[in-house]
Amino acid sequence: MSYKELNTPLRTIMTAGPVEVDPRVLRAMSTPIVGQFDPAFTTIMNEVMEMLREVFQTKNQWAFPVDGTSRSGIEALLCSIIEPGDKVLVPIFGRFGHLLTEICERYGAEVHIMETTWGEVFDQNDVIDEIKRVKPKITAIVHGETSTGCMQPLDQIGKACREEDVFLVVDAVASIGGTPVKVDEWYIDGLVGGTQKCLSVPSGMSPITYNHRLEKLINARKKVERGISTEADRKNEEAMSHPTIKSNYFDISMLQDYWGPRRLNHHTEATSMLYALREGLRIVLEEGLEERFARHKLNEHALISGLEAMGLELYGNRQCKLPTVTCVTVPEGIDPEPVRSMLLSQFGIEIASSFGPLHGKIWRIGSMGYSCRKENILFVLGALEAVLTRHGAKLHTGKALQAALDVYISD
Amino acid sequence: MSYKELNTPLRTIMTAGPVEVDPRVLRAMSTPIVGQFDPAFTTIMNEVMEMLREVFQTKNQWAFPVDGTSRSGIEALLCSIIEPGDKVLVPIFGRFGHLLTEICERYGAEVHIMETTWGEVFDQNDVIDEIKRVKPKITAIVHGETSTGCMQPLDQIGKACREEDVFLVVDAVASIGGTPVKVDEWYIDGLVGGTQKCLSVPSGMSPITYNHRLEKLINARKKVERGISTEADRKNEEAMSHPTIKSNYFDISMLQDYWGPRRLNHHTEATSMLYALREGLRIVLEEGLEERFARHKLNEHALISGLEAMGLELYGNRQCKLPTVTCVTVPEGIDPEPVRSMLLSQFGIEIASSFGPLHGKIWRIGSMGYSCRKENILFVLGALEAVLTRHGAKLHTGKALQAALDVYISD
Repeated sequence: MSYKELNTPLRTIMTAGPVEVDPRVLRAMSTPIVGQFDPAFTTIMNEVMEMLREVFQTKNQWAFPVDGTSRSGIEALLCSIIEPGDKVLVPIFGRFGHLLTEICERYGAEVHIMETTWGEVFDQNDVIDEIKRVKPKITAIVHGETSTGCMQPLDQIGKACREEDVFLVVDAVASIGGTPVKVDEWYIDGLVGGTQKCLSVPSGMSPITYNHRLEKLINARKKVERGISTEADRKNEEAMSHPTIKSNYFDISMLQDYWGPRRLNHHTEATSMLYALREGLRIVLEEGLEERFARHKLNEHALISGLEAMGLELYGNRQCKLPTVTCVTVPEGIDPEPVRSMLLSQFGIEIASSFGPLHGKIWRIGSMGYSCRKENILFVLGALEAVLTRHGAKLHTGKALQAALDVYISD
Repeated sequence: MSYKELNTPLRTIMTAGPVEVDPRVLRAMSTPIVGQFDPAFTTIMNEVMEMLREVFQTKNQWAFPVDGTSRSGIEALLCSIIEPGDKVLVPIFGRFGHLLTEICERYGAEVHIMETTWGEVFDQNDVIDEIKRVKPKITAIVHGETSTGCMQPLDQIGKACREEDVFLVVDAVASIGGTPVKVDEWYIDGLVGGTQKCLSVPSGMSPITYNHRLEKLINARKKVERGISTEADRKNEEAMSHPTIKSNYFDISMLQDYWGPRRLNHHTEATSMLYALREGLRIVLEEGLEERFARHKLNEHALISGLEAMGLELYGNRQCKLPTVTCVTVPEGIDPEPVRSMLLSQFGIEIASSFGPLHGKIWRIGSMGYSCRKENILFVLGALEAVLTRHGAKLHTGKALQAALDVYISD
């Protein structure tokens, strides 16, 4: 059987990820590779660590990608600090809170959950009260929940965790690079970002950071792989009273030795993806964090203005809206999937459906990274109006683009 | 702080991986992406599965990449079938046998090892005897051991495993695409390949395949993620008597539902890496498996002829040599690292050092995939002679390139 050359359509991707990749990032990926221990490459590894610290707004020594998609970073961080029987508190306000629960349980944690209605987030005080009651070792929580388009404030929770000597681990996959994430100021101990969302790098890497508090836990379980360990390593391991981390691939004590000065071989770093991440981070830092967050807010504002002018209703509490994902209630009498299909087939635009209890009830429109551009916002508004009209929805036609243009032109 | 544009040297990479990426693969990676559930993308996913079956020489339904570097596929396969207390037999003949042991132990297996001298492989009958004695659930073994440049024959072991109802899991990371790997003919139940070696795709994906025998084990532990599971899924799970797979990221029961017709969201597939893998596999199939293996043998022959003509000694038993990695004994009185450094700094050539007991004793020269070209073989021979001479080694100068040319020109 013979296979044709790769031949893909060009899409306008307005989902909650993966979103359009910046052309500069695509170009960086086509750079011929160098070996993983080539000084030219270890220099790039160090640069990426520096850049990540800036984007994470942290002075943490450790900031590097895990080689896998976003959830690989979440699993690496959690499995490297959870020991069987550890209490973990997981406040859930959408699908990805359930993912945190599930990962913690698989690694033997005693998980305490608290839930709130989807479309809302927690009052920080309620979480703090629960932390004081449960006294967990770890609190794991999502920052930007793409399933509901909501964003959980974390500053007070972080402060309380530090005071109560609880470790705070945060999933910031959907928020990093699109809206402020202040690792140090919010007292976050460990945090996971995503590449395929606001950084506009393809999926396949998961940048993480963690502080000395977590490093201490990880070092107490430190292991050097058999086949490359020295006598001294083996003696150290024997003296450890904490159990080995379950996963080899996600063992952060080994990742540290690869990303740190010892440069101990673990996996073979994903060269082209690291080139991509470097370029993506460089673009973020060139634009400037504050400028980038402002751009995301501006485009969100135009998108919301257009959707509301059309007569559509947003889903979720506006007070806690995630600026990078806008959830729209499917109008009564409209079947959501044919609308998405027609957007794709006629306009080449992709918007997202939804998960679990929200399945069939909302669409989710992302405005992330390189996809978060004026042209894209205007295109999706015009297209959505046309497609909904075609499906018999009663809308205020001709208003959406005017409302969005008002935002851009007055700006 | 400002960061400069990515600026890397062009290298001749003659290590055991990562090796030079085919320029067509580099180009494919710079293709703009599409969404993970875009029909244009799911078509590509299906094509990659088909292509993988051809390269793995199998009729298995399941053949897809795990999103992570090579060892992620090994861990995914092992952790999805090992239940705590399971007996696993691991015959070790180099570093990556130790890796298998380590992964199995972390997931709670009772591991029985057998070891042979590095530079040798096992007589298949010895492994079969041990299988009959230990009666393991699983035998896990490396096919091409890059740490020693040796290749373990597997056909008899596979047959015996099937007869004894033992599952055979094989690490073919270094051999797939460079030398025959016959999954079905050799009765291999589960197998893991690498991208960054003989496929000449960057590191970051790990293609795996497994048959219905393993699928049955995996399905008995099947789980659908909370937040997207249905009532029926939850009922099914409650009825399972086997423990949940420890890892969420590596849970093949969930990966199956993502790669299979149900298309259940798990991770976000690494789009650009999948484009790269597709192009890499397409190149392999265009060249033809037999032709590709013959090319690897020819270049190996030229390399060996040149090295021996120079007066260097190969390391390891020639009867079981891995055609894609050639190990060279460091001549007496020569410090191996300055030689490698000078090859890199003066010639832009990278060859590999070695691990564990072989550290400082051998160099490893890879001839894999796109790096496995006449020009590269001739360049590395000429460069090695010059650098060794410069370091005071006593060699038969002027012979190596003639010997290699004899191979190419008589061909």
